Amino acid sequence: MADAGRLPPAVPDGRARAVVDAVRPAVDGGRFAVKRVAGDRVDVEAQCFTDGHDILRVMLRWREESVPTWNEVEMRALGNDVWSASFVAARVGSYRYTIVAWVDHFLTWRDETARRQDAADLLLAARVGADLIEAVAGRACGEDAMRLVDWAARLRAAGGVEAVRSTALDGAMTDIAMRYPDRTLESVWPVELPLVVERELARYSSWYELFPRSASDTPARHGTFKDAERRLPYIAELGFDVLYLPPIHPIGREKRKGRNNALEAGPDDVGSPWAIGSAEGGHKSIHRQLGTIEDFRGLVAAAKRHGIEIALDIAYQCAPDHPYVKQHPNWFRSRPDGSIQYAENPPKKYQDIYPFNFESEDWRGLWAELKSIFDFWIGEGVLVFRVDNPHTKSFAFWEWVIAAIRREHPDVIFLAEAFTRPKVMHRLAKLGYSQSYTYYAWRNTKRELTEYFTELSRGPGREYFRPNVWPNTPDILTEALQFGGRPAFMLRVALAATLSASYGIYGPAYELMEQVALEAGSEEYLDSEKYQLRHWDLGRADSLRAFIAALNRIRRENPALRTNRRLQFFDTDNDQLIAYGKTTDDLENAIVCVVNLDPHHAHAGWITLDLGALGIEADAQYQMHDLLTGARYRWTGSRNFVQIDPQRVPAHIFRVRRRVHREQDFDYFL
Amino acid sequence: MADAGRLPPAVPDGRARAVVDAVRPAVDGGRFAVKRVAGDRVDVEAQCFTDGHDILRVMLRWREESVPTWNEVEMRALGNDVWSASFVAARVGSYRYTIVAWVDHFLTWRDETARRQDAADLLLAARVGADLIEAVAGRACGEDAMRLVDWAARLRAAGGVEAVRSTALDGAMTDIAMRYPDRTLESVWPVELPLVVERELARYSSWYELFPRSASDTPARHGTFKDAERRLPYIAELGFDVLYLPPIHPIGREKRKGRNNALEAGPDDVGSPWAIGSAEGGHKSIHRQLGTIEDFRGLVAAAKRHGIEIALDIAYQCAPDHPYVKQHPNWFRSRPDGSIQYAENPPKKYQDIYPFNFESEDWRGLWAELKSIFDFWIGEGVLVFRVDNPHTKSFAFWEWVIAAIRREHPDVIFLAEAFTRPKVMHRLAKLGYSQSYTYYAWRNTKRELTEYFTELSRGPGREYFRPNVWPNTPDILTEALQFGGRPAFMLRVALAATLSASYGIYGPAYELMEQVALEAGSEEYLDSEKYQLRHWDLGRADSLRAFIAALNRIRRENPALRTNRRLQFFDTDNDQLIAYGKTTDDLENAIVCVVNLDPHHAHAGWITLDLGALGIEADAQYQMHDLLTGARYRWTGSRNFVQIDPQRVPAHIFRVRRRVHREQDFDYFL
Repeated sequence: MADAGRLPPAVPDGRARAVVDAVRPAVDGGRFAVKRVAGDRVDVEAQCFTDGHDILRVMLRWREESVPTWNEVEMRALGNDVWSASFVAARVGSYRYTIVAWVDHFLTWRDETARRQDAADLLLAARVGADLIEAVAGRACGEDAMRLVDWAARLRAAGGVEAVRSTALDGAMTDIAMRYPDRTLESVWPVELPLVVERELARYSSWYELFPRSASDTPARHGTFKDAERRLPYIAELGFDVLYLPPIHPIGREKRKGRNNALEAGPDDVGSPWAIGSAEGGHKSIHRQLGTIEDFRGLVAAAKRHGIEIALDIAYQCAPDHPYVKQHPNWFRSRPDGSIQYAENPPKKYQDIYPFNFESEDWRGLWAELKSIFDFWIGEGVLVFRVDNPHTKSFAFWEWVIAAIRREHPDVIFLAEAFTRPKVMHRLAKLGYSQSYTYYAWRNTKRELTEYFTELSRGPGREYFRPNVWPNTPDILTEALQFGGRPAFMLRVALAATLSASYGIYGPAYELMEQVALEAGSEEYLDSEKYQLRHWDLGRADSLRAFIAALNRIRRENPALRTNRRLQFFDTDNDQLIAYGKTTDDLENAIVCVVNLDPHHAHAGWITLDLGALGIEADAQYQMHDLLTGARYRWTGSRNFVQIDPQRVPAHIFRVRRRVHREQDFDYFL
Repeated sequence: MADAGRLPPAVPDGRARAVVDAVRPAVDGGRFAVKRVAGDRVDVEAQCFTDGHDILRVMLRWREESVPTWNEVEMRALGNDVWSASFVAARVGSYRYTIVAWVDHFLTWRDETARRQDAADLLLAARVGADLIEAVAGRACGEDAMRLVDWAARLRAAGGVEAVRSTALDGAMTDIAMRYPDRTLESVWPVELPLVVERELARYSSWYELFPRSASDTPARHGTFKDAERRLPYIAELGFDVLYLPPIHPIGREKRKGRNNALEAGPDDVGSPWAIGSAEGGHKSIHRQLGTIEDFRGLVAAAKRHGIEIALDIAYQCAPDHPYVKQHPNWFRSRPDGSIQYAENPPKKYQDIYPFNFESEDWRGLWAELKSIFDFWIGEGVLVFRVDNPHTKSFAFWEWVIAAIRREHPDVIFLAEAFTRPKVMHRLAKLGYSQSYTYYAWRNTKRELTEYFTELSRGPGREYFRPNVWPNTPDILTEALQFGGRPAFMLRVALAATLSASYGIYGPAYELMEQVALEAGSEEYLDSEKYQLRHWDLGRADSLRAFIAALNRIRRENPALRTNRRLQFFDTDNDQLIAYGKTTDDLENAIVCVVNLDPHHAHAGWITLDLGALGIEADAQYQMHDLLTGARYRWTGSRNFVQIDPQRVPAHIFRVRRRVHREQDFDYFL
């Protein structure tokens, strides 16, 4: 529009007639990156067309961002002017892709020639084609050029309708000619769309949150990294691949909170690990009672041997005695009385926490220092970070720091702990977070779960927002868990492990079914580990360890559960029964889950599967193999009956086995 | 992303903490303009938020494109981080709008102060506030500055909690302070979104297509502009406001088509008006048998007196004897035998038509000449153009030419006659066409009509694609009209006139119910006016002229029918009955249509209205006033009974009258 009214117009070349529109996937028109994991096939679509009937050729262009040259893949017309092609993003890193299209006169000629019936027209078309092919030859070289010149000559020499037609439509020669198109009038989609490719752990991960200070095998003794190291075989047995530790730094002594969040700490109170920093050090130091940096390194190494990665908590806030407060008072807000402004949301006050002021004049210094905290722990071998309350820090900072770290360390994974408003959570995901906390803890009914997980797996966020769902956290003991007993703990973790490719639990509170809240109406744990040491009896007979181990084994063995892309809900005639399926793209692996959402009563009902989506033929028999119990059921058709007693196992996790033995399989049948 | 890893980062100011996202409306992120008509209230929404709890201020900025300074309107938070504001686009022309937001420390302070309970905190807040207000005063001047300084002083002097609180929350002073915000760290949405505002005719128009050469009152005499002028009172009586004429230029003699599209014309055959150009002239000349340029001017002027605008047909193609062919052979493709390439889509050939070659080396000259055709007729007082087959001309050309003309003549309206694939039609609308032909002719069943008009009124195209629906055209005599008799003609025009703010008919073929096709299975008229003169008996007793006049009167009198924005379909329990409503934004004018889609049989059924959408209270009685027959029905509740005999009138067009007289209205009741 800006160039209207001038002649010659500012259109680069007004003769470019191909149109490229609506390139997908794209997040906000390319303002943010689409996310995938290494090895993914990236499917790209675009709407391409031109005026009239001429034939287009369309190419998907892609490259790793650090490589200046494009790879090109020919796109295929799907109908309705939509074109499609794919490439495999083999390696982690940043990529770009775009689309280029042109009106192809050679293919247009071929297409018209094939449809011509009039003999005179066909003979004329031979001359047009010979000219075109000679032009193609001019762009070729070597043997191809010679063969093309020869083809043009044969076309000129061809006498009679059938000779012209068969010469013109020569498939092998067409293939050669297509290698040398005339692209002088090509149209390029103006945005090089960004794509971030992470390792598979960014999409598929099972997290276990543990307070090392409560990992001691002796009640009352402060736990250490060494204790946490001894806990690794147990965590590996449960099947988790990320061990997430709350902050491991010195804990502030000023304004320290006591047990159960008491305003005044007693002399023996250990304080909250999120009140970071004391005279002993800050975000790059280790709390002395946990051990030394060597102990930490030992834990990281030992975890690695168990197939477990250590995730650290990045909480950008300071206790009043954090060294930053003295060294950089200009990174904080000050009050008129000269004191530093603590965190508050009147009338609530958090006097043990000083937030950073992201409007500091020295914001560049602050950003650099905050980045150096990540860099420090990356240097210690940590590649997974759970970021505490990112929505209370500047969004511009997150976009910069994540991109900067990812450029240097593309294997680093960032989990946003933001339980805040929807648009804010989505923004953080767009800015670069690999994974995001969700509202799962508060989605309980069939309708709530169906709507929420449909939105997560099908809504626009599917290109950038990767859910990581937690049935509990140290801050969240839901009412469902407080009052649902053992069945509630089983069904909530089963839902989490199957609805979402990434999930986590805060343990051992979870597997030991800790369910007493601070007070009525509260979601805080009584005697929360946030403020005191706890001792856990991991060997308790009623522990859910075996059940959780089974869930994680099933996840590992079934690739359908390692992505959310093909999640689909199925109709049930009982609102306490929820049913859903996941499959791999090729339908080779198909999982159907049926969960009784009522922890108190057995429920029965009819499930209506979408057989096509599961790769089952309409009238075939198939086997539903319950991977939790080993039971096998023979089902037929889309509608089948299920009954679930929550006092036993509140969920079926079926692997669909399409091959059912019949009499023809019997040796003697033939 | 591109700036990651550098310090200082390229963020303009890393301290800017407000986020602006998802500004709506926008077409392809601002690549194309949103469309409105003069006088429209333009509602704009954006998602805006910041980290933490600080209070934002958000402004909608807008301006006419030719004016460099912005107008600003304060946006209002609707909840869920969505903000909204509006402006009235009073004049035709091009506009821009965008959003600016900032974290407002003054409002944040006020908000926190209102929530503070601790006395010491409140006294400290008074000092913080006084400092802030003094800073505000520094940005103000005159009396405002003095009052703000005074306010700060009062705040400092205030003793005691209640005095501080009431001084701090002074509403009048707050209003003054809000005039002088600190916007140094504001965030601006980076795209200045384009908006094109046209006159109301672009959205609401009633078209009548007429061949002037068939307007003679004597059979066999070639009609003229003078004849067309004598037809104006009739067209005005029917209520149309656009009279659209097929091309009025000299008709080619070479390869002229005969009656019923015969390949060879007889000596008396008049040829197709779309075969433009002969030795007598081209696109800027007038076909001699129609009259002179003075006659044409007379027609334009006379039409204007009847409230009718003349629309011309722009068909960018040439008969073989068009002067362009000799003057500018490089604007056409040539064949190896030296002849000019005619239009073809093998095996079909259109030897009477030479298309322009938009890949001509002289494309700049071609574009300029094509634009000058519009300019010529604009100079003759024509401001409405129906463009023939725009999808067979270069898209880049359309974007340029429409913008160029609109800049000089913002009152010009362009209608795209493109019956082609959906993405192509949408692209033309995005490129600037004011209105677009649609698939209406082939949408007959309740489901087809509901889906199509829901897509048109609610889909993304609603911001740029304005449908103009035609039950017939000289090219399209649908099967519905061929075999449905008079009821089909009545119901198809009634649907068109009420479902779409713009519609048109090709007359007098329509009102005289011409229904004989060229042959079985064809949608071509027998003895089509495209190739021969016709004589029409307008006075026929069975003419639909009164019915059509009633439809156009109802459209004029009911603003709800002049827009498609609030179209809503209602459930009916009989698939032959379709029901839908339209209202104005304020619900003052509400129309409900019920149409019997079966031209053969009477149908009855229950209609379920959405009472809320129509502004009717759930348990109120209301009156349905049929504007076609004058009948009035008293309805109650959402579900009511309807019976329609297509042999009488196949449609109800109800005006909803909410006020129903009751005993309380009777003089003696009190």
